[in-house]
Amino acid sequence: MPLMTVDQYKASLRDGRTVYYRGTQVEDVTTHPVIGVAVDHAAIDYRMAHDPKEHALAVVTGPSGSHSRYYHMPRTADDLLQRSALIERATMLGGTLVVLVKEIGSDALFALHVIAAHLDRTKGTGYLPRVEQFYRHCRDNDLAVAVAQTDVKGDRSKGPSQQAHPDYYVHIVSEDSEGVTIRGAKVHTSVSTNAHEIIVLPTRQMGRADEAYAVACAVPANAPGLTMIASTYGGRTGSVFEHPISARHKMMETLTVFDDVKVPWDRVFLKGEVEMAGPLAKTFVEFHRFTAVSYKLPLVDLFVGAGHLMAEYNGILGAHHVRDKLARLISYAQICRGMTREAARECKLLDGIAVPNAELINIAKLYFATHYHQAIAWVQDIAGGLLVTGPGPEDLADPRLGAIVRKYLGAAPVATAEDRLRLINLIADVTTTDFGGYQAVLAVHAEGSIEAEKMTIWREHDVTRHVEYAKWLAGIGS
Amino acid sequence: MPLMTVDQYKASLRDGRTVYYRGTQVEDVTTHPVIGVAVDHAAIDYRMAHDPKEHALAVVTGPSGSHSRYYHMPRTADDLLQRSALIERATMLGGTLVVLVKEIGSDALFALHVIAAHLDRTKGTGYLPRVEQFYRHCRDNDLAVAVAQTDVKGDRSKGPSQQAHPDYYVHIVSEDSEGVTIRGAKVHTSVSTNAHEIIVLPTRQMGRADEAYAVACAVPANAPGLTMIASTYGGRTGSVFEHPISARHKMMETLTVFDDVKVPWDRVFLKGEVEMAGPLAKTFVEFHRFTAVSYKLPLVDLFVGAGHLMAEYNGILGAHHVRDKLARLISYAQICRGMTREAARECKLLDGIAVPNAELINIAKLYFATHYHQAIAWVQDIAGGLLVTGPGPEDLADPRLGAIVRKYLGAAPVATAEDRLRLINLIADVTTTDFGGYQAVLAVHAEGSIEAEKMTIWREHDVTRHVEYAKWLAGIGS
Amino acid sequence: MPLMTVDQYKASLRDGRTVYYRGTQVEDVTTHPVIGVAVDHAAIDYRMAHDPKEHALAVVTGPSGSHSRYYHMPRTADDLLQRSALIERATMLGGTLVVLVKEIGSDALFALHVIAAHLDRTKGTGYLPRVEQFYRHCRDNDLAVAVAQTDVKGDRSKGPSQQAHPDYYVHIVSEDSEGVTIRGAKVHTSVSTNAHEIIVLPTRQMGRADEAYAVACAVPANAPGLTMIASTYGGRTGSVFEHPISARHKMMETLTVFDDVKVPWDRVFLKGEVEMAGPLAKTFVEFHRFTAVSYKLPLVDLFVGAGHLMAEYNGILGAHHVRDKLARLISYAQICRGMTREAARECKLLDGIAVPNAELINIAKLYFATHYHQAIAWVQDIAGGLLVTGPGPEDLADPRLGAIVRKYLGAAPVATAEDRLRLINLIADVTTTDFGGYQAVLAVHAEGSIEAEKMTIWREHDVTRHVEYAKWLAGIGS
Amino acid sequence: MPLMTVDQYKASLRDGRTVYYRGTQVEDVTTHPVIGVAVDHAAIDYRMAHDPKEHALAVVTGPSGSHSRYYHMPRTADDLLQRSALIERATMLGGTLVVLVKEIGSDALFALHVIAAHLDRTKGTGYLPRVEQFYRHCRDNDLAVAVAQTDVKGDRSKGPSQQAHPDYYVHIVSEDSEGVTIRGAKVHTSVSTNAHEIIVLPTRQMGRADEAYAVACAVPANAPGLTMIASTYGGRTGSVFEHPISARHKMMETLTVFDDVKVPWDRVFLKGEVEMAGPLAKTFVEFHRFTAVSYKLPLVDLFVGAGHLMAEYNGILGAHHVRDKLARLISYAQICRGMTREAARECKLLDGIAVPNAELINIAKLYFATHYHQAIAWVQDIAGGLLVTGPGPEDLADPRLGAIVRKYLGAAPVATAEDRLRLINLIADVTTTDFGGYQAVLAVHAEGSIEAEKMTIWREHDVTRHVEYAKWLAGIGS
Repeated sequence: MPLMTVDQYKASLRDGRTVYYRGTQVEDVTTHPVIGVAVDHAAIDYRMAHDPKEHALAVVTGPSGSHSRYYHMPRTADDLLQRSALIERATMLGGTLVVLVKEIGSDALFALHVIAAHLDRTKGTGYLPRVEQFYRHCRDNDLAVAVAQTDVKGDRSKGPSQQAHPDYYVHIVSEDSEGVTIRGAKVHTSVSTNAHEIIVLPTRQMGRADEAYAVACAVPANAPGLTMIASTYGGRTGSVFEHPISARHKMMETLTVFDDVKVPWDRVFLKGEVEMAGPLAKTFVEFHRFTAVSYKLPLVDLFVGAGHLMAEYNGILGAHHVRDKLARLISYAQICRGMTREAARECKLLDGIAVPNAELINIAKLYFATHYHQAIAWVQDIAGGLLVTGPGPEDLADPRLGAIVRKYLGAAPVATAEDRLRLINLIADVTTTDFGGYQAVLAVHAEGSIEAEKMTIWREHDVTRHVEYAKWLAGIGS
Repeated sequence: MPLMTVDQYKASLRDGRTVYYRGTQVEDVTTHPVIGVAVDHAAIDYRMAHDPKEHALAVVTGPSGSHSRYYHMPRTADDLLQRSALIERATMLGGTLVVLVKEIGSDALFALHVIAAHLDRTKGTGYLPRVEQFYRHCRDNDLAVAVAQTDVKGDRSKGPSQQAHPDYYVHIVSEDSEGVTIRGAKVHTSVSTNAHEIIVLPTRQMGRADEAYAVACAVPANAPGLTMIASTYGGRTGSVFEHPISARHKMMETLTVFDDVKVPWDRVFLKGEVEMAGPLAKTFVEFHRFTAVSYKLPLVDLFVGAGHLMAEYNGILGAHHVRDKLARLISYAQICRGMTREAARECKLLDGIAVPNAELINIAKLYFATHYHQAIAWVQDIAGGLLVTGPGPEDLADPRLGAIVRKYLGAAPVATAEDRLRLINLIADVTTTDFGGYQAVLAVHAEGSIEAEKMTIWREHDVTRHVEYAKWLAGIGS
Repeated sequence: MPLMTVDQYKASLRDGRTVYYRGTQVEDVTTHPVIGVAVDHAAIDYRMAHDPKEHALAVVTGPSGSHSRYYHMPRTADDLLQRSALIERATMLGGTLVVLVKEIGSDALFALHVIAAHLDRTKGTGYLPRVEQFYRHCRDNDLAVAVAQTDVKGDRSKGPSQQAHPDYYVHIVSEDSEGVTIRGAKVHTSVSTNAHEIIVLPTRQMGRADEAYAVACAVPANAPGLTMIASTYGGRTGSVFEHPISARHKMMETLTVFDDVKVPWDRVFLKGEVEMAGPLAKTFVEFHRFTAVSYKLPLVDLFVGAGHLMAEYNGILGAHHVRDKLARLISYAQICRGMTREAARECKLLDGIAVPNAELINIAKLYFATHYHQAIAWVQDIAGGLLVTGPGPEDLADPRLGAIVRKYLGAAPVATAEDRLRLINLIADVTTTDFGGYQAVLAVHAEGSIEAEKMTIWREHDVTRHVEYAKWLAGIGS
Repeated sequence: MPLMTVDQYKASLRDGRTVYYRGTQVEDVTTHPVIGVAVDHAAIDYRMAHDPKEHALAVVTGPSGSHSRYYHMPRTADDLLQRSALIERATMLGGTLVVLVKEIGSDALFALHVIAAHLDRTKGTGYLPRVEQFYRHCRDNDLAVAVAQTDVKGDRSKGPSQQAHPDYYVHIVSEDSEGVTIRGAKVHTSVSTNAHEIIVLPTRQMGRADEAYAVACAVPANAPGLTMIASTYGGRTGSVFEHPISARHKMMETLTVFDDVKVPWDRVFLKGEVEMAGPLAKTFVEFHRFTAVSYKLPLVDLFVGAGHLMAEYNGILGAHHVRDKLARLISYAQICRGMTREAARECKLLDGIAVPNAELINIAKLYFATHYHQAIAWVQDIAGGLLVTGPGPEDLADPRLGAIVRKYLGAAPVATAEDRLRLINLIADVTTTDFGGYQAVLAVHAEGSIEAEKMTIWREHDVTRHVEYAKWLAGIGS
């Protein structure tokens, strides 16, 4: 099957899925005033494949025909660098917002390959053929795939089987000759409203008693029993002038409820192997953190570009403190970029799959996440108070008011009042509005928390060489 | 005249003022869907005066009768501490948003007293009686007063009289026996849509050639020739459940255009004394930064309270990293508070007026401003991704969806799903939404920029004692 | 007995105490080339009492005659402010190094008063009269008093009675009609080599089984069985030109070994009341952290003064980045000072004793400690590489070399080469040499660790008011 | 000529050079108690070439025979990576202290190649053959080469020819048929006491009037008229137990005085081409900053290794805050390493020479420099107060005291008291002693200042792409 067009993609989403927005069931996600924006945004990945300028990056042609590069299994550091470049490019077109409908699903599929191969080899299970079959299904049909991982968790100090209610983690409630039935709910499921498939992954390490919770599988977005309650956050409708990014780009999260959803055996990728729940969660997350830092690059580059241009428009590009802040923003962007590349170059091969270096990608992600708010502060500092006190497009459109605004806000010689307001609105959209807040929370929480990143760095780093050096210098044990 | 009631205050705003919102003239600011929220918010200052619980703090009774404490001229450190406490209290009731309709005006009036007294004494001008008369007018009629200070500035590397257009700074275009006529525009004018009077102040130091620009005066909000173009930023209408603060509280800024506004002589407080334009701007700003740090206290306290409660709701209050972040948030709040008090206690008396210690209040403000974004990051870290991925009130209201949400998001034993979502929405409102962005930009820019604060600290600090100590220790000059 | 003179103080230290330095027993600490510097430094406290310029601050005259202000029991916030001023002044004279011979002992005595009063009242013990008697002994004889608190601890994850060896915490090994006998060792005991008395305090909370370890008492510095092994760190002898501070000022720490030291009953202040071991440790530490931040003020002031003067000498005072760094150094110093004052003003009365506000003093200390290394970096940045590459005094003294050095390093018009090198050596001494490192480690570790400070802030802060505010704003429970 | 042995290297330094230390002329630098340590340290570069384990990294065999890899002209990114690896390795063997006797000289030679090629091509000068000849001289004779760059500068706000005295920058005072004569002094000249050759480079951009100051050349260390006044900083003699690094490793700086030193024409590489003074200074510095970050890696790795081992010895490796600090130290080290590699990989070819990417190497260096003091604070935090309060080796050697120290400080089961003290002394040596201070000042100042790094980043970064992206998103110019 060929690569889907945008129209084919949209048509394919009218499949009877159960999506609610503000208490009301959504008949057609593609035409919904809020979710429709998310669909249009997701369509970028499909548009790119058919755009001659993007084709070389977006599409891979191999023995099994052409398919999206997202589904290209990484075998080398260069594959990872190309994947990173594609994610960065799509996110640029997405106005700093990751598209994600193929990124996250392929991250999960790669991780499932690694874990299934390990399990089949060490425990004689037969997961790998299932994973490969489902992988080909997604790849060859050019599907959009979401990943439902974070359970609602109940009391976080307790494990899945110790909770007051058995449903606080998604679990298998029964099985028969056809497959298993799962129940529970996942939060923060991104792009699920406009994905074709939803991969279910465990969210944490598990213990002996958690067998029913050690489950990975895939369900179609329109599976019976599957209900998605879309988030109301940031469901803004407004003009492109005022909200140049968020009026056109959106990612939609759902509370994803599995109310006894049946999953056939060939879509079950982990069932009861509690010792691999943690490694599967972790392997997915490392791939996904590599995706994450790749998709952050347009955002941090924008800080540099918008900060520089705003300084020009404000007539303060010569001020020492402005150059100081811009130099720091440049450093911020370049360290994010450099460490992402380094994580690709220092990848590890597991069962023939190139896995980004876990330590380095967490260092990149941690660096990004822990400096993000300061970066915003610098951009806001350069931009000025007009970020939140400026007039609107209707004022510009009015003859008398428009003349006033043009006279007084178009004072700097390098920019018209209109361009200046456009730039201010762009910076506001990315740093002060609901959308800016969404980006900030993503920086802190998406793809795992800051604390998780630090603990991964701590565990992954091989300290032996450094400890030996310290001992040698100190004269210990010599 | 007695202290105005809320109804009297609202009625008094229907005075024919010229306000535009999104290109349309506003007939009645008190009933406008967006500006009306700002009016209701401003009314807090009037409500407090009539609330028996707040009366002692809000009202001062002296020889000239009862009046709002905001208009109480500070004579001692204790007066400043009381003023700070009133600002803090009103801001608490304002949901972390300063009320400002009397705060900022009185800051300007105190500064005008200081500068007028100095000018009259040193140059034989007659400004002080005018200032005193206008001050009594505001105080005795219990007026709401805005301050228009920041000019649009044109090319920032040039002074007022060097600009390509003469109107880039507000200036006197003519004068006659009755008074002066001013032209120009000010940006970022807060609470002007719902103030009675607007005090015009210079925004910077001026040189010999800037005589026409060295002007301070007061005009009624409905003065002929005065047009206010209200900012469209954050003009949200939404439910209190989703936006517990911003659905009820708002501050409104305008582009304030003086299109040949006549000002009678008894309202002119500076005219051509270019050497005092800078000192007047600075004296106002020091009073206003004291107001600023006072009104930041409920916000930083909320970070502590909401962070703590959210950690409880999320079941992570025992985590070391959470306690670490809460301890840092507590420190942040307490240093803001402690240094504000210290600035009051170390005030200086100028012509009998207690002026907050300029060095210390700038240190307090700089500390607040340069740590604000990190504080937000910590609060968001504790709160979790649900800040931007949660369901809405309509989902809770729906019987089937409501049951799902309650089951899955009400898992933690200490809070219902509804309360948890309320708290999440509160934290989102103050850190991630348009309103949160407004607060962040205020942190960086309101009452002067970070760079201005640093340069004031540098200039105000008497380094002599420290240099002498260094010399003594080094053995220099001994 | 009158206040001791410096000579009397020195003579009193020739008392047969057992002190070792580099493996050799020290016959006379006052004449030892390294420890003698510490004795001279300690003498500052005695010299001040007899210096007419310092007398008013250093000496209190009350109904029981004149005595050192260090021993003045604080009853009010003002007492604490005066105590802070005295500590600051003595440390100034001590070249940024705290004198400590009366500071730390009185901190312990105040804490012993509080705990003894509580124990006598609640458990019927008779400790307070003993504490009062010992307090009068110290005060009326004008004694230097050290505090031995930190045990060697063995395995830190275990309590005193759970250690592999019973002596890893100081404990009572026997008792008889005359008193108790203690054994064990304390580390980091400051000024013990030149104190008259050593107060022993518990270092942590204790459990039921730790009765023998819950001991507080006092022993003379020459007590039989008491051995002090002096630290070799920083035992430099050098010229005042090269090391303007450390050639004249030193604090000496010992490993303090109690090898069955007998303590008479009237010097035993805690014995077996395990539940008060923690509170006693904590109460001492809060007094001592107040001392700590008081004695840090000359150091942080010096950063401002030396940084400013160095910028002048280097001809870079006009550079924006230099002013930026100086403004931050000023803020650093003033926040330390302001929060110390605030902790005094917000003190709590316990049994009539004014205890510095524990939350606020920990905030002050944490702020100081966590910004110290950055402050050093700024000062070094301003000072330049000559800090570690400059010539020595012998080069200046040589006719030919001296001429070269004067020609080439005396280039800036505001300072001679000699003064410039003096200032560089001062900054080096306080930021780069052994002494600078000593100050840095003190910043991090003395008077309790950074983590301990954060946890105290977390525990001491009453979060109720803030949580209630969050609930009210969120509409929870209303 | 073969690669020199250590003995040959030392013998070659007895060449009649004029070196002073503390006012006294040094007869033989190799046997001087302080400078001799620097000679031994420098010998590492010679020892490595003859060590079979290091040979492959240290020596390159090409058409012109074997020579030190330091002198291998980088042609590819891989050459730079190998060079970086060699510098890192030598510095490891140097106990975190760079060896530098070939590193810095080759940095200068590479820069001279680039600039000479450019000048000869664009202005028809004949510098390149001279540079190539001198380069072969250094390479083929395996010489140690210092670089004298930083002038004493006088009044920093003025250029070389505007100074009060003509000698504040090194300049040509006369020329004849044989060559030029130079006068002036350079500060901070590292390894000059034990180098064979000293390359003189300009330190800044120059203007039209500065012709005499635009000079680059090379002089032998024993040239008549050349006087070196060695720095007295950190000239410690002590035991390896107490100072495991600084007792064995030292770098020596001099005030390097050119008192009419004659330089033959074939050693003159720039003379009067004022427009290339700045580019030559800059090109050298970019190579040298690449050397710098390469040689910082053992130091930052040591922080990780020593911090980890110390946490183990102290029994606190399980504490959350310790793991947090170690994770941050790991991130610090790995970002330094990753960005250094990225700067090599993104190198630019100039006249066939691979020049490290200027923007990226400055980002690496800035990141290293601005986080160094915090890293030290974390290591000190983990290590504890014993860094500055512990006993000495003589105490351990004494039977009675040694038993006490072993009993009380050897409490943790994983380490003896002796090993624990060895590790503490190592951490003290690198963070708190004169040597630690030397490292800290190097972090801030060596190879250019923090401000210079920021301004280079600002200038080198091509902002066009980011500005275009901002415009495209904002809808500006579309």
